[in-house]
Amino acid sequence: MTGATEEATISASGIAADERRAVDSERRIPAARLHQFIAAVFAHLGVSAVNAARAADSLVIADLRGITSHGVARLGMYVAQIQTGAIDPRATLTTIRETPATGVYDADDGLALALAPEAMDHCIDKALATGIGMVTVGNSTHFGIAGSYAIQAARRGLGAIAMTNAGPLVAPTGGRTPMLGTNPIAFAVPTGPDRPPFVFDMASSAVAYGKIENARRANKPLALGLALDEHGFATTDPHMARSLLPLGGEQATSGYKGYGLAVLVDILCGPLASGLWGTHLASVQRIGNRAGLGHAFMAWRIDAFRDPDEFAHDVRQLLDELRACPPAPGDDVTGVLAPGDPELAATRANEAHGIALHPTVWADLEAISRQLGIPLEA
Amino acid sequence: MTGATEEATISASGIAADERRAVDSERRIPAARLHQFIAAVFAHLGVSAVNAARAADSLVIADLRGITSHGVARLGMYVAQIQTGAIDPRATLTTIRETPATGVYDADDGLALALAPEAMDHCIDKALATGIGMVTVGNSTHFGIAGSYAIQAARRGLGAIAMTNAGPLVAPTGGRTPMLGTNPIAFAVPTGPDRPPFVFDMASSAVAYGKIENARRANKPLALGLALDEHGFATTDPHMARSLLPLGGEQATSGYKGYGLAVLVDILCGPLASGLWGTHLASVQRIGNRAGLGHAFMAWRIDAFRDPDEFAHDVRQLLDELRACPPAPGDDVTGVLAPGDPELAATRANEAHGIALHPTVWADLEAISRQLGIPLEA
Repeated sequence: MTGATEEATISASGIAADERRAVDSERRIPAARLHQFIAAVFAHLGVSAVNAARAADSLVIADLRGITSHGVARLGMYVAQIQTGAIDPRATLTTIRETPATGVYDADDGLALALAPEAMDHCIDKALATGIGMVTVGNSTHFGIAGSYAIQAARRGLGAIAMTNAGPLVAPTGGRTPMLGTNPIAFAVPTGPDRPPFVFDMASSAVAYGKIENARRANKPLALGLALDEHGFATTDPHMARSLLPLGGEQATSGYKGYGLAVLVDILCGPLASGLWGTHLASVQRIGNRAGLGHAFMAWRIDAFRDPDEFAHDVRQLLDELRACPPAPGDDVTGVLAPGDPELAATRANEAHGIALHPTVWADLEAISRQLGIPLEA
Repeated sequence: MTGATEEATISASGIAADERRAVDSERRIPAARLHQFIAAVFAHLGVSAVNAARAADSLVIADLRGITSHGVARLGMYVAQIQTGAIDPRATLTTIRETPATGVYDADDGLALALAPEAMDHCIDKALATGIGMVTVGNSTHFGIAGSYAIQAARRGLGAIAMTNAGPLVAPTGGRTPMLGTNPIAFAVPTGPDRPPFVFDMASSAVAYGKIENARRANKPLALGLALDEHGFATTDPHMARSLLPLGGEQATSGYKGYGLAVLVDILCGPLASGLWGTHLASVQRIGNRAGLGHAFMAWRIDAFRDPDEFAHDVRQLLDELRACPPAPGDDVTGVLAPGDPELAATRANEAHGIALHPTVWADLEAISRQLGIPLEA
């Protein structure tokens, strides 16, 4: 394509050209190479080889699934938290209480990306032994995407739920200021041998904070029901947004349900995990503070309830029936998706073509690479 | 107050007079008397004395909590389902699979209001023995409010989650027709001796179907984001509403999260419980069909994780902090409530003054009373 033709295309369709520019400017990196880099960075900072690999697993799985807000884009945050002492790279998981089916662990301000998977491994072992396991982790830090923990169990043939609390960003229904985190809930079940598990991973807020930041950069209005301004008024202006609304938005559209889900998560990950909650938690933005986060995991054997092949068959049929739902007007092109379908499609594309990194993320990684003397590309 | 003064008051404030008229026309009945009537009705229809009392517990707890859509207002529906054979009043709970921590039960189209509490009792016993229990119930019927099962466990000092699937009323995100039930999730934990538990009980739809029916009777528009018309267009006209939207409303306000929660519930209560799901389930409206519903319960010992008094203290503090959140503009009068506060207030009022029954509900109960020859009032 000549320069002149390219120029004409941009003039004819600004939007299409913008999109193409975004794609053109994203560089792709194979998942294995990205994993190697992340693990080397954590190891360099004092994390054991096993834990560095675990932490890399978590970030790469987020990027593969297209959840770029929780992938390697956050590597700089973890590095800064280790360098400022907010995360202790050498901390290990301590057992506080344990029964054959339950466990209580303390992460001692360690790298949750590595210690939380270890806690989920214990939960899985308990479920394998007794049918169902439940564990909590206290004194922890940012653990990445909740979905990775549910997937960890589903890959071993179990159903699972994973939750974490988080620093305050969400206003309670009728309230003016942030009191709760985006407190996510993830759920996964296997759908059969050699098939990806069914995974559903949601924040209990109406949107993730990253969507507000995206709208700011794009100077685009928000849908009503996502955010409040500093006075507690609903706002569609991303620059004015100070608090997120819970899932459901305002009172009239049942935002008190998302509020209740956030409290459910906070009770299990805070008080039940001997930890903090609500406004006592440090925001992920406030680097240098102890995070004080907690997590809760549950896992159960499918075969304690039903033949796993029959179960997997029925889950696949359930999802296929949803995909076959007649589409609403305006949705005819994509049709109805099953929960998790967008992440499955992203995983397939990213595994085939490499993980696409936004130029700012690439620049951040190059800065980390230079600072620590660890090559980014082989 | 003289007739003339009363007349003047009505003229001066139509709204206040309307409200007073509504209160005046509601007759109140003591919870114990209502319980006695419900139990006598079920016993008359062939339900054992123990199960009739259990079923009455469930309906009365819903009315006490102000969830009138799931209380004695539904007695006529259960009576009709027993009389048409959709519910077998003599069916008992059968154990399909069991381990010390897990159980799979079949309700054999029996009265779920009585058999589901029995299943939750098994779940509680398993949790007491192992730390955490999980059970499913298949081939079941309408079990009332999910909250009553979580409360059942919390009253015995345990944390709990209760779920059920339900007949299709909710359109998946991007879809035109109902494919999922309102699939509720209830959660409860104890908050200390002699204190009511913390209870959070939500449908995964944006609203319950009863709210659409209320808006039809009042001829009032719905908030946007609650319902779709028969063509799959969003509608604020309750008379045009054919499908409910999931919690979160449309795609732009994250309705795919409520959709995912509904699927989570359907997977645990359908495929995991060897039961049906989605459009295979009979609507509660279609009396005469086998319901084919399923339930899933989890319960866990608080002391497997933490000292129960410390846990209860922290939960109470967490809730008090939420109540102290500065109110948003317009919400200054009520301030911020903790989830479950409205139901606690309703319970206190209904225990003190008797349960208020809407005139149409009272008329339904009188019709049942006449039909079966069971006195409604002592």
